[in-house]
Amino acid sequence: MAAKKRTRKTTAAKRSPSSKQPYDMALIQRGSRLRRSPFFDKTLEAGCRAYTVYNHTFLPSYYDDPVNEYWHLLKHVALWDVAVERNVEISGPDGFAFMQLLTPRDMSKCRVGQGKYVLITDEDGGILNDPVLLRLEENRFWIALADSDILLWAKGVARHAGMKVAIREPDVSPLQVQGPKSKELMADLFGDKVTTLPYYFFTRTDLDGIPLLVTRTGWTGEVGYELYLLDASRGGQLWDAVVKAGKKYNLRPTGPSDIRRIEAGILNYGADMMIENNPYEVGLGWTVDLDKPGDFVGKAALQRIKDEGPKWKLVGVEIDGKPIAFNMTKWAVLAGGRPVGRVTSAIYSPRLKGNIGYAMLPIVHADLGTELTVEHPDGRRHATVVKKPFLDPGKEIPKA
Amino acid sequence: MAAKKRTRKTTAAKRSPSSKQPYDMALIQRGSRLRRSPFFDKTLEAGCRAYTVYNHTFLPSYYDDPVNEYWHLLKHVALWDVAVERNVEISGPDGFAFMQLLTPRDMSKCRVGQGKYVLITDEDGGILNDPVLLRLEENRFWIALADSDILLWAKGVARHAGMKVAIREPDVSPLQVQGPKSKELMADLFGDKVTTLPYYFFTRTDLDGIPLLVTRTGWTGEVGYELYLLDASRGGQLWDAVVKAGKKYNLRPTGPSDIRRIEAGILNYGADMMIENNPYEVGLGWTVDLDKPGDFVGKAALQRIKDEGPKWKLVGVEIDGKPIAFNMTKWAVLAGGRPVGRVTSAIYSPRLKGNIGYAMLPIVHADLGTELTVEHPDGRRHATVVKKPFLDPGKEIPKA
Repeated sequence: MAAKKRTRKTTAAKRSPSSKQPYDMALIQRGSRLRRSPFFDKTLEAGCRAYTVYNHTFLPSYYDDPVNEYWHLLKHVALWDVAVERNVEISGPDGFAFMQLLTPRDMSKCRVGQGKYVLITDEDGGILNDPVLLRLEENRFWIALADSDILLWAKGVARHAGMKVAIREPDVSPLQVQGPKSKELMADLFGDKVTTLPYYFFTRTDLDGIPLLVTRTGWTGEVGYELYLLDASRGGQLWDAVVKAGKKYNLRPTGPSDIRRIEAGILNYGADMMIENNPYEVGLGWTVDLDKPGDFVGKAALQRIKDEGPKWKLVGVEIDGKPIAFNMTKWAVLAGGRPVGRVTSAIYSPRLKGNIGYAMLPIVHADLGTELTVEHPDGRRHATVVKKPFLDPGKEIPKA
Repeated sequence: MAAKKRTRKTTAAKRSPSSKQPYDMALIQRGSRLRRSPFFDKTLEAGCRAYTVYNHTFLPSYYDDPVNEYWHLLKHVALWDVAVERNVEISGPDGFAFMQLLTPRDMSKCRVGQGKYVLITDEDGGILNDPVLLRLEENRFWIALADSDILLWAKGVARHAGMKVAIREPDVSPLQVQGPKSKELMADLFGDKVTTLPYYFFTRTDLDGIPLLVTRTGWTGEVGYELYLLDASRGGQLWDAVVKAGKKYNLRPTGPSDIRRIEAGILNYGADMMIENNPYEVGLGWTVDLDKPGDFVGKAALQRIKDEGPKWKLVGVEIDGKPIAFNMTKWAVLAGGRPVGRVTSAIYSPRLKGNIGYAMLPIVHADLGTELTVEHPDGRRHATVVKKPFLDPGKEIPKA
């Protein structure tokens, strides 16, 4: 038995799409420690070739060459299992007050039925997460998380805060439907109720009786939606219904597109920003409302950082040389032969026909046009500080 | 370029050990989001075949058939990169008081230089983590974590606790050296100072100038140690020094042994216990000191659970049928044809010549000798509730 298990599955190219288990999960897991999304079995069936781990849960990474998936997203509809965006619910009589405490953004400007991109910061103004927040009721919020245990953070802050608040992980599993034809698909499935949603708004609906929220959000800079499945037991049903309706729009399951999100200037928590970074240095100062009433975690530190001016800046960079598939580590950036910063993300953009990415640099090296050297694993490369976003500045990704 | 990247590497069996990148990391990661241990490059060089993700960091899973690795651990010395056990440091004038608040265990019974196995619980008595704690000074503690962001939890609790405490992730990366010959290897490297350490004690030392703590701890039930590397930049050096000295004891790098830890009755956080579970139901009530002075997080809930008696119990089970390599999901357990609980871990023990594991069951189905049915993916199997640990009860794993 053990000897049988030891044998690795054949490579992706040789795998039959009808194979029961097209991906050898033992490459990423032994035992039941990691969680599976309600769509997991469907992603295996659909031929997912690689998974990563995000919020203790498997995230389908790609089914095909990510460049093919990128073009598909630009032309048709892409379906992503992003149930790894685990949600935390803040509710109770002091739900609003507690949410105001947790984020630098002013929640009084978020209506019920509206969403906001928010940061969660610690006492030093360091970024703990960058969720999409939904305001469900006056005192009830969901935050769809990047990869860190904000459930524990929020429960910890609440312990001595003296507020009446309940904090839990609700049964919510987002599924992204992105791409230019996603609007027509939504119209077919849900009608005007969904297609007239302004950016970052949401509505409660259902599909064949499957309870859903539909949000006008995404991680692409393309037109897109997220279906928040509200009953984990019906993940397979929802997947099948969307795939069926999407056939005429050439829908296919893909992984999240790093190429497209970098083109659009979107950040990836853990890569482009971490607890060590503050909102101002990563260009997210617009989410910090220092003048909102009351206290919030990190307020004093963020006021000081703003007054003094950030010392670092996450800039756009163009990197010369052969196409970069992606960076597996944060490559050193040199100025005058001396290491000064790090490339956090780098990728080849087929539309821009060049390598683009982000670098975290001291302010003195962050001016547009600054020439730098990047320590690529295959050798040094010339790079230049450029404006970001690289494409569609502000059109499809208004500040919301 | 993309087309080239798309091609999957050959299977493990065909890979050359001298290959620069024996494992295709793109199967688990695209981009720089996940962290690498200070020993990461060495584990790749040593031919690690699979990684999982733990505390946002790659954990080497296996280099060979895990059954071979198990026998090696029992007979020789096994070297595990467990730098994923990220540490959180609690310090400051109120460090002791805050640590008492964070864990149900009585820290007044832990001397400086001593360690303890502790639980971190939430307000409901739910288990958030089960780290090994080291008391470095009167007011300074490190906790080497299982897979959850206790850095965020601790910082959250501290926010309104009114204590003078500093919380951070220090530069500490544990490396486990386990197996019957590990004591001789430690004697060669460090002398009596280390080999006379009682179970769960530690000492500060160095190896070729590399700063270390050495602890008499491990995740095996075998004799074993952990080298806590205190300078991440020297991971490769430490690895090489240990490998070189270990040659005469037939040391080899392996993954953590699930077979051995299950035989020994050791639990795996995320699989065998989670936030939904309390210490009493998983057999860890002995780590809860309800009578210690002052409050701790979860005290009232745990007092109530103890008074009422737990409703569930994590039991040992023997499962009939063919050898089980491991369980990828938590299989349903039936009693009288009705689903009542879940198998959390299951594996074939080559020494016991049978399948062993744990199941979380309602108290009424948890008596020794209870006969149950397990929903194995290949069909139903008969199972019996048995005593745990399965081997070496208490000898090499005293309650510490």
